[in-house]
Amino acid sequence: MAYKRRTGSDLPVVAGNGLLDRRALLGRGVMMAGAMGTGLGASLASAAAEPLKDGPWSLKVGSVIPPYQTPSRYEADVVRTQDNPNNEPRNSRARTPHHLLQGIITPNGLHFTICHGGVPDIDPAQHKLVIHGLVKQPLVFTLDTLARYPMVSRIGFVECGGNSAPLFSNEPIQANVQALHGLASCSEWTGVLLSTLLEETGVDPKAKWMIAEGADSPHLSRSVPVAKAMDDAMVALYQNGERIQPGQGYPMRLWLPGYEGNMNVKFLRRIKLTEEPAMSYYESRTYSQILPNGKAYRFYFLQEVKSFITSPSPGLTLHEPGVYEISGIAYAGTGRIKKVMVSADGGKSWGEAALQEPILPKAFTRFRMAWRWNGGPAILQSRAWDEGGNAQPTREQFVALRGQTTKPPSVLDFPSQHFNSITSWAVDNKGEVRHVYA
Amino acid sequence: MAYKRRTGSDLPVVAGNGLLDRRALLGRGVMMAGAMGTGLGASLASAAAEPLKDGPWSLKVGSVIPPYQTPSRYEADVVRTQDNPNNEPRNSRARTPHHLLQGIITPNGLHFTICHGGVPDIDPAQHKLVIHGLVKQPLVFTLDTLARYPMVSRIGFVECGGNSAPLFSNEPIQANVQALHGLASCSEWTGVLLSTLLEETGVDPKAKWMIAEGADSPHLSRSVPVAKAMDDAMVALYQNGERIQPGQGYPMRLWLPGYEGNMNVKFLRRIKLTEEPAMSYYESRTYSQILPNGKAYRFYFLQEVKSFITSPSPGLTLHEPGVYEISGIAYAGTGRIKKVMVSADGGKSWGEAALQEPILPKAFTRFRMAWRWNGGPAILQSRAWDEGGNAQPTREQFVALRGQTTKPPSVLDFPSQHFNSITSWAVDNKGEVRHVYA
Repeated sequence: MAYKRRTGSDLPVVAGNGLLDRRALLGRGVMMAGAMGTGLGASLASAAAEPLKDGPWSLKVGSVIPPYQTPSRYEADVVRTQDNPNNEPRNSRARTPHHLLQGIITPNGLHFTICHGGVPDIDPAQHKLVIHGLVKQPLVFTLDTLARYPMVSRIGFVECGGNSAPLFSNEPIQANVQALHGLASCSEWTGVLLSTLLEETGVDPKAKWMIAEGADSPHLSRSVPVAKAMDDAMVALYQNGERIQPGQGYPMRLWLPGYEGNMNVKFLRRIKLTEEPAMSYYESRTYSQILPNGKAYRFYFLQEVKSFITSPSPGLTLHEPGVYEISGIAYAGTGRIKKVMVSADGGKSWGEAALQEPILPKAFTRFRMAWRWNGGPAILQSRAWDEGGNAQPTREQFVALRGQTTKPPSVLDFPSQHFNSITSWAVDNKGEVRHVYA
Repeated sequence: MAYKRRTGSDLPVVAGNGLLDRRALLGRGVMMAGAMGTGLGASLASAAAEPLKDGPWSLKVGSVIPPYQTPSRYEADVVRTQDNPNNEPRNSRARTPHHLLQGIITPNGLHFTICHGGVPDIDPAQHKLVIHGLVKQPLVFTLDTLARYPMVSRIGFVECGGNSAPLFSNEPIQANVQALHGLASCSEWTGVLLSTLLEETGVDPKAKWMIAEGADSPHLSRSVPVAKAMDDAMVALYQNGERIQPGQGYPMRLWLPGYEGNMNVKFLRRIKLTEEPAMSYYESRTYSQILPNGKAYRFYFLQEVKSFITSPSPGLTLHEPGVYEISGIAYAGTGRIKKVMVSADGGKSWGEAALQEPILPKAFTRFRMAWRWNGGPAILQSRAWDEGGNAQPTREQFVALRGQTTKPPSVLDFPSQHFNSITSWAVDNKGEVRHVYA
């Protein structure tokens, strides 16, 4: 067997400002250290001239394996941000630190959470789900009875309709990817399809909507078309293998793959089938997008095709010129991601990113691209397409349709919902990264 | 739209003692409550005659959303078992509670862990990986440099070679699925392919093996064929999105998809390329399977095709006759799972289980099957096939090849490794489940 070492000249440039061919991401046949020969970067690794030194952890017995493992104390900064740490009487948000994560699964501890009355402490033995209204037989389901129904598992995302709201500002707000895009996460959900339960109750043909209600103190309720219920809606009981955590709706939540987060009612206790939507607080006020013409865009459910680069991103400074991996997340409430293009010159030229298998519908897809930073200014962007051919809109296209504002975005009075346009990160000649519009 | 309710007579029996057609698992067109009409079971759900009552959690504000979420206090029993809780000077094992989990992803907190000198507390800023020996240029990699190489993500399992060792006993040991099969777990791993790093160092054609060594105090080392290194071996940095946890080898581990757990060296600090294997302690003693003819079967890497039922299983008592879901896990170090057959009559007749997509190579695959328990005795079994056509062996076949023992299995003196035969759960007329050989 001969494993030949190639030279840096094998690295094919596919777009401006150092974007390299996506075959560079397959882990075969393209050397990072090979770039030494081109004078564009130093070898990433150092020569091993000295023997390994034992750290203190190599010289003593470690600690007991705990019943439930948690991250290393050296990862104490890998946490969600809290915007209401004193639990004042308003909403609370905790955002996923995408700049510090990899792959497509969000670990349960770091899944984003929004609560409208804090995190309730629900006794699962007392919790019940009632399905009633325009059904043939109203029924009550306990956790024990739900456990006997056929279950399904599916990897998919949840995204708040207000994720990325700061990008409605007419000036780029200086914040990192966690603050800007941290209200989206992806898990393997397991539970009972709502269609299975509705076949138990039977459905009156007059039923066109169902009103889902949570057991937490705000009794948050949202209206969902019965067609979605019969398609892929799930009463989710497990998240990444274990029972869903309190911030995700323990002991059960509604999961509507691809629909805005607020509709995925947590602490689910009631589903009422009706002819008309409830016009509940959240659907008639908060989650009604105000358009430039002043009208409200209600019952706008889908989280459309979107992507953003997680690394490099603000806070992750490049310390020297050379080869880096550009990595990010793409997803679409409409189905699978078909393609992600990446630019390093603010959109003048584009190269196609590698998509990590498996590419699953309505789930995060990790994209990656090799990039040789020459030490000069660069503007990094990603743009995704879904399998239906829908493109993530440019900022110009997006603002024309949805508007922007000179005031801080608010969920009530300014456009703030369903932002899915392109994010631009500017790298300066010190390797620092900031949010720009380009 | 008309969603018709069907009758119980639509439930097609496909094998003895109540196994139902796997279409029953697709969540469409087969009613569980429909079984009422057959007289074989009560409706799972109760009629909703009374309005919902508010629990105390519905009447007050909940708690603050924490920076890192953990499971509900009502899930305090969903933990790993510890076999060395006082950290005595020997190995320690913590097993995954498969009877309480669902889907294919094991949450990081519950991934099985074996440590040979406790869990080390490694400072990632000081940890280095050296690749040397029969290479053209020995190199040292820090976490920062590794972060710049092309990464890959892959969902796959790790299984201890000694998982299921109690089943080498000639009498069925009474224990639950966690105790019997809890040394296997499945995650999304992200890191740098070892082949990428070896192309950086270059490989001397004489190199046929590599010796991987950990930074924990035992400096555990194992020999791995260079061919595996160039195939799909990974230096894993992330597990289910976040940095791998201390029990999994923080800050980095070797991951060899499909190979026995011990070879997936944790706290990886050194890889030395050699002509011959090291004949290290673990490969020449512990993980050398003793065959009935008295010879040791060394360098036996693959975890072959295997499956077991996680529910029903010991400790999960059936409280009344009726329809239940049989659910379990199948996996093969050789590739994808092709088929899982389930029996409710101790292997006399078999029905094909539904396999949950995505079916990924060298990863857990969740299988499910509907079963109508008539209240009488039953013996539940599963048997898996991999995509290469290899069948999980029957107990008779397995014992003939690998042996069994009248003494408690030990990793040293009795057969204990690579058990992959069929597990049998007997359900008695009280609905209690116990481990049997059948």
